[in-house]
Amino acid sequence: MAAKGIRDQVAIIGMGCTSFGERWDSSVDDLIIDASAEALTSASLSLEQVDAFWVGTAGSGSSGLMLSRALRTADKPVTRVENMCATGSEALRGACYAVASGAYDIAMAVGVEKLKDSGFSGLVGYPPPSDGTQPETTAPANFSLLAPAYANKYGVDPDQLKEVFSRIAVKNHYNGARNPRAQFRKEVSLETVSASPRIAGQLGVFDCSGVSDGAAAAIVVPARDAHLYTRSPLYVKALALVAGSAAGYIDDSYDFTTFPEVVSSSRQAYAEAGIINPATELALAEVHDCFTPTELILMEDLGFAERGCGWKEVLAGTFDLDGDLPVNPDGGLKAFGHPIGASGLRMMYECWLQLRGEAPAERTVATVAAGRTLGLTHNLGGGPGESVSFVGIVGTELSE
Amino acid sequence: MAAKGIRDQVAIIGMGCTSFGERWDSSVDDLIIDASAEALTSASLSLEQVDAFWVGTAGSGSSGLMLSRALRTADKPVTRVENMCATGSEALRGACYAVASGAYDIAMAVGVEKLKDSGFSGLVGYPPPSDGTQPETTAPANFSLLAPAYANKYGVDPDQLKEVFSRIAVKNHYNGARNPRAQFRKEVSLETVSASPRIAGQLGVFDCSGVSDGAAAAIVVPARDAHLYTRSPLYVKALALVAGSAAGYIDDSYDFTTFPEVVSSSRQAYAEAGIINPATELALAEVHDCFTPTELILMEDLGFAERGCGWKEVLAGTFDLDGDLPVNPDGGLKAFGHPIGASGLRMMYECWLQLRGEAPAERTVATVAAGRTLGLTHNLGGGPGESVSFVGIVGTELSE
Repeated sequence: MAAKGIRDQVAIIGMGCTSFGERWDSSVDDLIIDASAEALTSASLSLEQVDAFWVGTAGSGSSGLMLSRALRTADKPVTRVENMCATGSEALRGACYAVASGAYDIAMAVGVEKLKDSGFSGLVGYPPPSDGTQPETTAPANFSLLAPAYANKYGVDPDQLKEVFSRIAVKNHYNGARNPRAQFRKEVSLETVSASPRIAGQLGVFDCSGVSDGAAAAIVVPARDAHLYTRSPLYVKALALVAGSAAGYIDDSYDFTTFPEVVSSSRQAYAEAGIINPATELALAEVHDCFTPTELILMEDLGFAERGCGWKEVLAGTFDLDGDLPVNPDGGLKAFGHPIGASGLRMMYECWLQLRGEAPAERTVATVAAGRTLGLTHNLGGGPGESVSFVGIVGTELSE
Repeated sequence: MAAKGIRDQVAIIGMGCTSFGERWDSSVDDLIIDASAEALTSASLSLEQVDAFWVGTAGSGSSGLMLSRALRTADKPVTRVENMCATGSEALRGACYAVASGAYDIAMAVGVEKLKDSGFSGLVGYPPPSDGTQPETTAPANFSLLAPAYANKYGVDPDQLKEVFSRIAVKNHYNGARNPRAQFRKEVSLETVSASPRIAGQLGVFDCSGVSDGAAAAIVVPARDAHLYTRSPLYVKALALVAGSAAGYIDDSYDFTTFPEVVSSSRQAYAEAGIINPATELALAEVHDCFTPTELILMEDLGFAERGCGWKEVLAGTFDLDGDLPVNPDGGLKAFGHPIGASGLRMMYECWLQLRGEAPAERTVATVAAGRTLGLTHNLGGGPGESVSFVGIVGTELSE
């Protein structure tokens, strides 16, 4: 067991998140500034007090200068990280390690993406390896393959399963309708989702996450200093990352009902955080619901449901806002939107609000009042066959 | 003084570096594999023993999958970093902080770039900010502005100064001629450099670094464990990064005879490493000689020469292979080549060889035998007006 983690070494003491969506009103710089300013304000810090910065973007800029120019962070280090759709979590991870190492007292992680005016359609995937071992397909097409695989493996009637996917969309839109910063803030009916125009395979447009602009930010300090800045810090319990190197699509044994990287990264995170049963210990989970079948698979990969039983839990409402384990109470990628580099930190922002009791009343999860203190974020880059999976766990209490 | 650094917390215990140049024979994967294999061999480690990976590339791939696919690093974290031409140093910095934090026992940093078949001409700069505050110019044009600024400020005769630049090229080609892995392995005469075809301003083609393919890698462990892997680890004494946020070109007061980010990052690094006089304490320096005027300016910004006097030191041979402070004994960007994401780790590779007494006899610096134990790498991204500057210092001895 080589990965020892950094449990309870660092804490998040401030966060910010812009509205996501069609932000024609804001440049990349504007989004960085808005998210950072909210994070600084929430930590009662000035920009000058931050020692080092990490900025995550998949394609809305390059180098640390994209942040130093925007914020005018004179004389400070700024590092850009990129890990496809898990980029925002990587910015947080970089800041956490640097603070835990003792190199810096205060670090800020910012994730940002501006997709709407980039020409990015949201229907393209990342290019396959140049060696020809993978087909060139779109993201919806790749993820749509999960649906028939799941139906076949577990003998679920395809129409029944389509309703399961629609239920996930209905849930996340319901939650997003209670989030003033979400891209899509209207509830949708099962019928609307089911009848939505087909994108790929069984996936309709309401099974797909938004193409969005937005930014989010977090400020990290050593855990021992956290109470100098806020009454309610979030202690980092685990940061796990796994980059796949399976043979992917060309491996005939590849099973489209699981992301092996998610299984591995979540088990590492649970071990690091001391979690035995995530479904009963977590107050909420923000997971990478890029498409509705992804969220179903994640419920099983993350250990929230037994293999082959996740679909029943979805129908039973287990993951609803008032369910046993609320999943994506902020609306998720589906309704909050998916500005690539920002999503990982946006997920953490919901943990920040919910665990501190600051979420709007209409979407407050009951699990926190019931005594649960832990939140999970799951951020996926890539797709079936080869992905990068991040699992972060934070909590409001130090272990001892 | 907020930045505390990680002096003597971690050590480099293995390194690798491919030949740089026109590597039509090798893919990006091949280069990653070759550099990593040499690093693992030098540390007597197997790939499976490495806990986490950082990969730096400016544009030869995206996400951690570019490394996990190449090396088949099943179940391990892989993070991509990018900071323009300072990208390779950022990979090392990420690995060092993660190990220093205690999250991982063994981390590997890999930098790679494959420019020759990318269509990248080497004559283009990064695009300016979209707000129109900076002109769109090429890298040679940007850096050529240093020459007349220096001549004017210090009253140096332009022809005399041109000879200084040529001397820098002659030195680095002389060193590269003694490096079997360098892209350009032929000595050149002052006359050849002076008469070389004009690229921009006063810069001839021999004043410009190579456009190259290549990769380099380093393995990092906690300092206390270093002797388990090698008799001669390199202890990390300082890692300093500064991202500029000056007004740049549009600021009329901008002085083209200095990179403020280099001054700031080097002073931070010297403070962290406990260095008073770098010119007499360092055994060697590997600096970012993207163009010959850059190396001259760096000699002053890094404190190796007094302001306005660096040109005399160049002519006096201070920075020659047998000088008081050898600079770029491996040939530098100029002769070793500049595969963007690899350069920062390539610089560290020369420190690895020289400080451990493993450099080929024909380019061994005398300073190590004379008792100096410290090496410096300086890696620059961007250019005059706005840059990212990294300064790393390593040594063969623990402080106490």
